[in-house]
Amino acid sequence: MPRHTIDEPKTPLEVYLEAHRIAFAPIMFQAARLCRDLGILSAAERAGWDGITADDIARKTNLSIYGVRVLTEAAISLGILRLNDAERFVLSRVGRVFLNDEMVRVNTDFTQDVCYQGLFYLEEAIREGRPAGLKVFGDWPTIYEGLSQLPEQVQKSWFAFDHYYSDRAFPDALPRVFANKPRTLLDVGGNTGKFAVACAKHDPNVRVTILDLPGQLEKARKHVEEAGVGERVEGVPMDLLDATKPFPTGYDAVWMSQFVCCFSEEEVISLLRRGREALAPGGALYVLDTYWDRQANPVAAYCLHASSLYFTAMANGTSRMYHSRDMLRCLEAAGLCVIEDIDNLGVAHTLLVCSPKA
Amino acid sequence: MPRHTIDEPKTPLEVYLEAHRIAFAPIMFQAARLCRDLGILSAAERAGWDGITADDIARKTNLSIYGVRVLTEAAISLGILRLNDAERFVLSRVGRVFLNDEMVRVNTDFTQDVCYQGLFYLEEAIREGRPAGLKVFGDWPTIYEGLSQLPEQVQKSWFAFDHYYSDRAFPDALPRVFANKPRTLLDVGGNTGKFAVACAKHDPNVRVTILDLPGQLEKARKHVEEAGVGERVEGVPMDLLDATKPFPTGYDAVWMSQFVCCFSEEEVISLLRRGREALAPGGALYVLDTYWDRQANPVAAYCLHASSLYFTAMANGTSRMYHSRDMLRCLEAAGLCVIEDIDNLGVAHTLLVCSPKA
Repeated sequence: MPRHTIDEPKTPLEVYLEAHRIAFAPIMFQAARLCRDLGILSAAERAGWDGITADDIARKTNLSIYGVRVLTEAAISLGILRLNDAERFVLSRVGRVFLNDEMVRVNTDFTQDVCYQGLFYLEEAIREGRPAGLKVFGDWPTIYEGLSQLPEQVQKSWFAFDHYYSDRAFPDALPRVFANKPRTLLDVGGNTGKFAVACAKHDPNVRVTILDLPGQLEKARKHVEEAGVGERVEGVPMDLLDATKPFPTGYDAVWMSQFVCCFSEEEVISLLRRGREALAPGGALYVLDTYWDRQANPVAAYCLHASSLYFTAMANGTSRMYHSRDMLRCLEAAGLCVIEDIDNLGVAHTLLVCSPKA
Repeated sequence: MPRHTIDEPKTPLEVYLEAHRIAFAPIMFQAARLCRDLGILSAAERAGWDGITADDIARKTNLSIYGVRVLTEAAISLGILRLNDAERFVLSRVGRVFLNDEMVRVNTDFTQDVCYQGLFYLEEAIREGRPAGLKVFGDWPTIYEGLSQLPEQVQKSWFAFDHYYSDRAFPDALPRVFANKPRTLLDVGGNTGKFAVACAKHDPNVRVTILDLPGQLEKARKHVEEAGVGERVEGVPMDLLDATKPFPTGYDAVWMSQFVCCFSEEEVISLLRRGREALAPGGALYVLDTYWDRQANPVAAYCLHASSLYFTAMANGTSRMYHSRDMLRCLEAAGLCVIEDIDNLGVAHTLLVCSPKA
């Protein structure tokens, strides 16, 4: 069995439980989230093996005993709390991870704040090929145009999700990019300038060009100046989706990080082709992204499959977390060949180092 | 371990998977539901062990290949589809149950149509003790006042859920009620008259009084006339929540089915007390309901814990699927004692046969 699939439940009861967990999933998600956010799980954690009663939880959290009862009873079925022999609530191992693991927290907040309401419109999004769920926030064609206008909590959860993954992949990827000592680097879709700053700090001689929408460049400018690398990082405004617009040329390195997953395959090919044309002789194009078939375990693949549906319903209606096979096909179509293929950078990333086909 | 709890996952990877399944639950629910409703699961079922490709699914369902890819990839992680050795999609055992089991279908539709959007407001509901999620449909104080005005699809899923459970419990409960040959029966909260009709048909001599809101009685009247038992079933309009209003008296049997779960404990005590006062000498009060601790397996308890949150966010903000201990305490407080206590009627019900305390 491929390593990205999950064992099937075995007994008929396990099969029925699985089906019912799907049937009630959104309801139980809300219960789990509130057990975390209203202090029920941390009250149970502090109580340790002795456990805690519903009355004591109500006292410590200032919630009604009714509220505590419905949430803790759901938590028992969710498996985030369990009852000890004295029938007091104890935090389970799943509950401990749900409460304390940063990646789980970031994903949960992203689901609630960015995705929950809009995912109701997933069918419309799939039928119409556009992010139909985005209407819960505004009427932009994609989420990228609206990013800076989203409600504060939504933006916070969006960036926490985005940065959680990129922050962990950059340190692993940087030495690979700078092994070839590029003097110039084009950061395609450089967004808030995080990678540009990391590059400029990593190598005092490199010059970086960020290519992105004007709104993003403004944020990046601020970030770059604060980091004191403003004189070696410039921004070039561009609507990257306009396939007729060539990129500036002559770069030793062209960089696309957590970027190709934001575009349809057709768009990806156009972006890669223009990226190839931007290379100086001997230069290399670097694609850092996540592919569900390349994950070390089924949990990571699960996260990517779920994130794909964010792209469908909320972001653009056309992109997804790709299978590596899809991306290799796009690279081929864009006239690139893969010279290095490195998995397991950061939490979930693969770095594809590419050069123009001979 | 009590039989209503679920085994904890064992390996660290299983624990992380569980936590992430909660984190992304609403997103993956929408994917599963659409795999069912857009014909993807049935296409896989028809393909049998040979399996089916994404391209063939797209052709058969008239969906874009992109839509099929994001949904089928999510379905792999959900465990409702799996890939066979030829990398074609096959319906899994969980998928088979999710597609074909009537109870799972009824629960899924109830979650999507009645609960999904409103559950976003669960925190508000818990903090304020009112069904804050109901605002997605209208501004009634509880769902019962608004039931007949809900959108058609919402009503359909609401009644399918309600009737799925009661339809299976009534045939098991009726012989228990009629063992004592009651001549008169008071059906408290008789709703659409389903039980009243079943009683009148079961025993050609019994006379039934339905006690409910005027809107409900109108529906019940129609139902009762259609069944040809109109001359032995009457309706008495009453706001049951007005604790000062006594019930009509002198009944051999007082019946409360799937009813106490719709009220707070304080309200339940008032209803039970007035039910006791309605009994003729030697009469009995019958409470047919579901208690999460009395379920035969953790799947049934899971369903009840999830359903409780519907009461919290959508129905009334104060009631829930009770623990039997809570109900026994209410009966005691209302001056009743339990003379028979029968579990496992229908899918999930317990019948408590009660008489006034000496």
